[in-house]
Amino acid sequence: MEARPAAEPATQRALRRRNLGLVLRHVAEHGPRSRATIAFETGLNKSTISSLVGELIDLGLLLERGALRRGTVGRPGLVVDVSRDGVVALGLEINVDYLAVQATDLTGGSRHRWLEAADNRGTRATDVIERLARLARSALAAVRSQGLRPIGATVALPGLVEVERGALLVAPNLGWSDVPVVDLLRERLDAGTLPVDADNEANLGALAELWEGAGVGLTDFMYVSGEIGVGAGIVIGGELFRGYRGFGGEFGHVTVESRGRRCGCGSRGCLETRAGLEALLQAAGLDQETATTTGSGRPVAELVKRARGGDRGALKALSEAGVWLGIALGSAVNLLSPQAVVLGGYFAPIAEWLRPAVDRELEARVMGARWGVPGVLASTLGPEAAVRGAAALSLHRVLGDPGLVAELSVG
Amino acid sequence: MEARPAAEPATQRALRRRNLGLVLRHVAEHGPRSRATIAFETGLNKSTISSLVGELIDLGLLLERGALRRGTVGRPGLVVDVSRDGVVALGLEINVDYLAVQATDLTGGSRHRWLEAADNRGTRATDVIERLARLARSALAAVRSQGLRPIGATVALPGLVEVERGALLVAPNLGWSDVPVVDLLRERLDAGTLPVDADNEANLGALAELWEGAGVGLTDFMYVSGEIGVGAGIVIGGELFRGYRGFGGEFGHVTVESRGRRCGCGSRGCLETRAGLEALLQAAGLDQETATTTGSGRPVAELVKRARGGDRGALKALSEAGVWLGIALGSAVNLLSPQAVVLGGYFAPIAEWLRPAVDRELEARVMGARWGVPGVLASTLGPEAAVRGAAALSLHRVLGDPGLVAELSVG
Repeated sequence: MEARPAAEPATQRALRRRNLGLVLRHVAEHGPRSRATIAFETGLNKSTISSLVGELIDLGLLLERGALRRGTVGRPGLVVDVSRDGVVALGLEINVDYLAVQATDLTGGSRHRWLEAADNRGTRATDVIERLARLARSALAAVRSQGLRPIGATVALPGLVEVERGALLVAPNLGWSDVPVVDLLRERLDAGTLPVDADNEANLGALAELWEGAGVGLTDFMYVSGEIGVGAGIVIGGELFRGYRGFGGEFGHVTVESRGRRCGCGSRGCLETRAGLEALLQAAGLDQETATTTGSGRPVAELVKRARGGDRGALKALSEAGVWLGIALGSAVNLLSPQAVVLGGYFAPIAEWLRPAVDRELEARVMGARWGVPGVLASTLGPEAAVRGAAALSLHRVLGDPGLVAELSVG
Repeated sequence: MEARPAAEPATQRALRRRNLGLVLRHVAEHGPRSRATIAFETGLNKSTISSLVGELIDLGLLLERGALRRGTVGRPGLVVDVSRDGVVALGLEINVDYLAVQATDLTGGSRHRWLEAADNRGTRATDVIERLARLARSALAAVRSQGLRPIGATVALPGLVEVERGALLVAPNLGWSDVPVVDLLRERLDAGTLPVDADNEANLGALAELWEGAGVGLTDFMYVSGEIGVGAGIVIGGELFRGYRGFGGEFGHVTVESRGRRCGCGSRGCLETRAGLEALLQAAGLDQETATTTGSGRPVAELVKRARGGDRGALKALSEAGVWLGIALGSAVNLLSPQAVVLGGYFAPIAEWLRPAVDRELEARVMGARWGVPGVLASTLGPEAAVRGAAALSLHRVLGDPGLVAELSVG
């Protein structure tokens, strides 16, 4: 039996690893600055900073360059900045009517994206995951050809996700249950040491809005994702709230009519049966069009066009969907009392027609409306929020612990 | 201008004050123990502990006594324990159909309690607060006659409370709005330096269940308070969740019927219109009785008696209230995914008749019900939860910062 190493070196490694994260996040949050400035601001000594910055440069996370001059005299110093051309993370998404992929670098830049319309209902999970793997392989090839190193992938899924196992427990609108998405995808990707994770699409959309969308600067909001299904990601105190059982934010299954329409989840009168994309298109007389096209882009664009043109059927359907959405939001606001509501997914492009009814219902239904109701904002990321949030989540893991990158095999 | 004191002494005082709290909470949570044990367990040195314990004894928060012998030989040592006969806090409650007062000592013992049935609707706020002040003065006299020192009072209120100002913003069932309850009560109590606070009754009920009721050992639950109004206190991660705007937990105003009955809050179809005490008594044919008696105790007891006796009208009304409650809980569980639901207030004594319908609705409406739904527990404190939580909240302030007691004038 080998002698165990003393505790001291292990602690030192852990400390160094923590400090790597501290320095990387400091530069990512506060912008390019000199080693001396980083030392001063973090309270770590200069030689430690030089060593940590050196390792972060070697990992492809930071780079060194001349400072931008701002009218000062003298020689411009060297600054370190987050590297645009080092690492990249993949966001992947399986939704009911499309597949998507997004590659984002550490500066938040998009390096590859692809959206493929596809009616995934009634298709076997393994077939859809095979198609997603193909998109992911193309994306990996594309980013590697740009000299970027992939450091993780996260899959956005339209249903209940067991995050620990990377499994989709149930997605009523896909008709799938108990699919080990991450395992199936890893096999097909030949992922090696690349971390692959999965999460609910509304949760990831909420993180995207928090980090780079309508939620920047907010700490407590509810992001509502409108697709064929309706979901929510709840942000409390700047962090995603999942609930004790991990199934929080199932806003599409808030009951708005006790004896309402049958929902794919098995219940009746869920919000989704009134404000989901299909219900709205049907109410607007556009359901035939959905049946013959794939992807939500076209029928939503048509709905917007009709609403702009004053089409009474479209306007009535939008107003009614707004009422149902407002009723459910009234209940959610009465429970959660958030700072704001962000309307995402296909709700974003139609927000201007939903909002009057939503606002009216909130005014009528929220206790304390007299002292103000949460603002209702349109998502700035639209239907891309989930896949962008998926990529960003993998990047945030690296920002939290840059040592993870060193553990990847050369990719 | 006087010279400002150096920072050092202020910091030392702050540190000592923090350590006073540390020692008091250590004894309160872990039970009686010797000074040496406290020093060992907290990591503070023995002379510091002796000095801190001495101050806590002087403040009436700890006392010294002989240890209980547990079969060991030798002289029994001295232990310090939380003092039962030092300080006491008052819980006060204004509800729609009663006033209540509760005095609790630092060991959690009840030292005085009083419930006064009263229909407070349509009565002027100042008149009701005058009556509450009279109850509070009697309670203060009673605890002082037991040699106890009052260290704070908290008022439970059935509506939206602005905690910072101690004001009731609106209580639809009382017909009150914008009542500065704490200010009005302080005047009438001649409160001096006694801290007086106010909070929503369901929030305080949730804290009582967390600290000494059905929620002990739970970290994430929703406490539902059934009175004439219906509210909830949401506990997340062992702490009360209020929401960004502070108006969270307004569960009684979750919409269960979009075009349902008019609610006192001005909306329609709120849960309260179907599962509030009056709605249930009316459905059970007991509303005449409420009109002629005061306080909820008697009609609820009558309802329980009829349900036990198999009265079909009572059983049908209970089952229907359970359905409405289950529909609203289904929505709340879909959003919050809690560990458990605690049914409090008048829901506690009728929980056995509500639960079958509640469980059925949760099974049908909660996404992921297949993987289990939160357990539905009956409150162990019943209608006393709020007033007990009110007293406990004041005591917890002292546990957090025992130095507060030193700042009170001799009471």
